[in-house]
Amino acid sequence: MIRSLPELKARAAEGGMRTIAIADATGEPTLRAVAEAHRSGIARSVLVGDEARTRARLLDCDLSPDRFEFVNARAEADICRLAVRLVRSEAADVLMKGSVKTAALMHAALDRAAGLRTRRVLSDVFLFPFGPAGEQRLVGITDGGMTPEPTLDQKAQILVNAVRLFHRLGVALPRVAILSAVETPTPTFPASEDGAELQRMWERGEFEDCVVGGPLAMDLALSEVASALKGVESPVGGAADILLFPTLEAANIAAKAIEYVVPIEPAHVVVGGSAPILIPSRSESAEARMNGIALGCWLVGEDL
Amino acid sequence: MIRSLPELKARAAEGGMRTIAIADATGEPTLRAVAEAHRSGIARSVLVGDEARTRARLLDCDLSPDRFEFVNARAEADICRLAVRLVRSEAADVLMKGSVKTAALMHAALDRAAGLRTRRVLSDVFLFPFGPAGEQRLVGITDGGMTPEPTLDQKAQILVNAVRLFHRLGVALPRVAILSAVETPTPTFPASEDGAELQRMWERGEFEDCVVGGPLAMDLALSEVASALKGVESPVGGAADILLFPTLEAANIAAKAIEYVVPIEPAHVVVGGSAPILIPSRSESAEARMNGIALGCWLVGEDL
Repeated sequence: MIRSLPELKARAAEGGMRTIAIADATGEPTLRAVAEAHRSGIARSVLVGDEARTRARLLDCDLSPDRFEFVNARAEADICRLAVRLVRSEAADVLMKGSVKTAALMHAALDRAAGLRTRRVLSDVFLFPFGPAGEQRLVGITDGGMTPEPTLDQKAQILVNAVRLFHRLGVALPRVAILSAVETPTPTFPASEDGAELQRMWERGEFEDCVVGGPLAMDLALSEVASALKGVESPVGGAADILLFPTLEAANIAAKAIEYVVPIEPAHVVVGGSAPILIPSRSESAEARMNGIALGCWLVGEDL
Repeated sequence: MIRSLPELKARAAEGGMRTIAIADATGEPTLRAVAEAHRSGIARSVLVGDEARTRARLLDCDLSPDRFEFVNARAEADICRLAVRLVRSEAADVLMKGSVKTAALMHAALDRAAGLRTRRVLSDVFLFPFGPAGEQRLVGITDGGMTPEPTLDQKAQILVNAVRLFHRLGVALPRVAILSAVETPTPTFPASEDGAELQRMWERGEFEDCVVGGPLAMDLALSEVASALKGVESPVGGAADILLFPTLEAANIAAKAIEYVVPIEPAHVVVGGSAPILIPSRSESAEARMNGIALGCWLVGEDL
């Protein structure tokens, strides 16, 4: 079981070199991350974009262009389409956003004819280290990147996406907390009613190889002590691996709150497509981007 | 300027003893918090509830009943009504939830004839320490406790409530970030449109003695580095004091995420009524309750 991001990087390196297609690698944190991915044996990269500008930026960063392949393109839509095509044709294993806009990359990635769409909902899973020293584990926040207001059915698919990712991390029976502000279903908070329904679906056997409890407030999701104090019986028992949020906005804000308040360098990846997709925020550090690369590469070929 | 919760406790103690009315003080963390509040010179308490049971619980906790006053009542509604009446009549300065339900206490507190209602919206402000050692400050999350889906007008009042609290902490010009998942207004995220409108209202001079920026993603609210990297110009400049959330659920989940992931012992208080109201979660520690007491007592008489 992979319990930390350094461990994830080490395991990804053991798995051998993957190939990443980067859409516009002219940003310094992107270049530092892909150089580090190459150095640590996790991935080589194909840099799709303005080749002359990309080479110049590599020199600015004192990085050698020799270890990279280049695909020349200028317009954002062309860059995105070519990067997606590399992944679709299996010339690359992972798709990664560089300096293009997320919307432009996802537009190309979700193209029905030429993209990476499957029959599943795509969702972002954000991993962060949690727990006291010696008992740390990775906890996931989902979905902070794809579906603004997921329906019950979409939440079920987002749940399955995250559970598959945790299986790949070696967590045989991931515990999923369906979050709300309250632990008793009420129409005031529709997410609380979805939480109760998702737990019932799990009780009926609709979600295999996981444990689902909801609705849960965050204290009941993450703290066994709080669960005992509140006297709330939940299959999750205050020890969630996966935190399924009511909305994209709530997940996005909470994930970034943890990233900047703790602070930590997280990893996140979009799953549910035919290949892992990395959509780092423009403000993400090289280290967080590198963590995302390790995560994406670790998931390659897993039918996520 | 008060920059930490220990400093807040010290200043509250210098301000002299206040009086708190506790609705059902039979929980151990409640009793430990009010005993500590008395010991540190911040507040004496009136324990409203089943007197015999409360006295027995004090003995269980090795605490002397001598330092408390008691008001005997059995039914939850009576306990809440009597605790609220003590505050309304100014026999007590602060109202605090013990083992009654939040809804029951707020029902009594919001009674139009006998409660603590003003013409303002009530809102919860959750304070946590933020920033590198030596540069720590208190940052507030609002509203994680009162209004499930605040309208633009309610958000404006929630903003003013939090700004007043920060003025009392000595922050002359609090920076308020109106949070969303994005920094460009879009109908996909209605909170982003509210963020732009609240910033415009501030530009027109509708909010005095503060700085308002929105919409902002959490990285742009809390990180000057992220703001520079993203190249987003905002009056808040990545250094928010107050984080105004899109919904109660998002605020509640994020506040508890910080509380349990960091981990920290926070302080929170409901402002906007005629007196401070403390509604600790059932799972909150004695220390967090004590922090809340210090915060509530520090705000007494401030027309919050």
